[in-house]
Amino acid sequence: MVVKVHGPAFASATRRVLACLIEKGIDYEIVPLDMLNGAHKDPEFLKLQPFGVVPVIEDGDFTLYESRAIIRYYAEKYKSEGTELLGKTVEERGLVEQWLEVEGQNYHPPIYNLVVHLKFFPKMGVPVDMKLVEESEEKLAKVLDIYEERLSKSKYLAGDFFSLADLSHLPFTQYLVNDIGKDYMIRDRKHVSAWWDDISSRPSWNKVLQL
Amino acid sequence: MVVKVHGPAFASATRRVLACLIEKGIDYEIVPLDMLNGAHKDPEFLKLQPFGVVPVIEDGDFTLYESRAIIRYYAEKYKSEGTELLGKTVEERGLVEQWLEVEGQNYHPPIYNLVVHLKFFPKMGVPVDMKLVEESEEKLAKVLDIYEERLSKSKYLAGDFFSLADLSHLPFTQYLVNDIGKDYMIRDRKHVSAWWDDISSRPSWNKVLQL
Repeated sequence: MVVKVHGPAFASATRRVLACLIEKGIDYEIVPLDMLNGAHKDPEFLKLQPFGVVPVIEDGDFTLYESRAIIRYYAEKYKSEGTELLGKTVEERGLVEQWLEVEGQNYHPPIYNLVVHLKFFPKMGVPVDMKLVEESEEKLAKVLDIYEERLSKSKYLAGDFFSLADLSHLPFTQYLVNDIGKDYMIRDRKHVSAWWDDISSRPSWNKVLQL
Repeated sequence: MVVKVHGPAFASATRRVLACLIEKGIDYEIVPLDMLNGAHKDPEFLKLQPFGVVPVIEDGDFTLYESRAIIRYYAEKYKSEGTELLGKTVEERGLVEQWLEVEGQNYHPPIYNLVVHLKFFPKMGVPVDMKLVEESEEKLAKVLDIYEERLSKSKYLAGDFFSLADLSHLPFTQYLVNDIGKDYMIRDRKHVSAWWDDISSRPSWNKVLQL
């Protein structure tokens, strides 16, 4: 069964899902969605995803949204195929979940603000809130200090194995490093920098960037 | 093995964990933490939880933080004991994960703002940002409209079974209904209201409220 992924391949949450599908060796088909013209608010799309955001997957009769839920679903459904992304034991999975939650709750909100205000708003002619940018950079720096400490003790966030927790950081960190002049936030931290070089050079991620 | 739960029992994220432990019939011991005097920022506590927030669990040698990671860990580790909280199939678990993510990413941010500004800030003498309160109520109302539609089709969020997705909504919705005069947001929506009556009357939740 080919998994249908609704959402433009350049959308960050869609990229999170695609990286996972490629790591697991799962066939997929991207269903284009013209978000610039508001296709994600069309009634037909809202039947699939009532919040009007991407991505959504259709896998036969099964529909699922929320990128971090989709990656958990495929990592579990195809546990023994491709890269093992949830750890080998229930404790390892616990730590994967811990760092996935840290990504969603602590890392994502400030990095999202930085990317939206410094990459997208200028292009859209929306005024940039520099106070929010500064506060977000400060918050993200504190989170990255904790990552630096953690990554001085283990190669990846959940342990010495690449997992969904690392993968989930790829889309927005890519923007931070390449698009908004904030690469020093990664580069000034030795272990975070080595971790970023490692996870961003995975073939799966490079394939996602080329889609 | 008795699970040590660090964090005052009245803290909302601690309550999320306690509700899960009680549903699963797992023995626990609450380790008090004097947050009012900043004990969560003490170096000893930061070794357990570097972000300086509660809860953290210690289970023998295993330490885990982030409440939504902890509840997943125990729901999986003791899958066949107590209430089944992750669904029976990988698809059911996928939907539990979807609605857990909706809770964390869409429901939690606006309800957190409402509770912090209307319940805690007035007691602390911190000025309330009424513009943020209004925007948060508007965002939460839109999320609840989607819940109303969903709950018109299934008894609980992930399907016709109580799961971590429902459980995770208990702590902040309790404040919304009982403490800040916003109960109409639940009561004006027939299916959401029936769902709230159902999940908030579970013996596990009533036990948590009495701790």
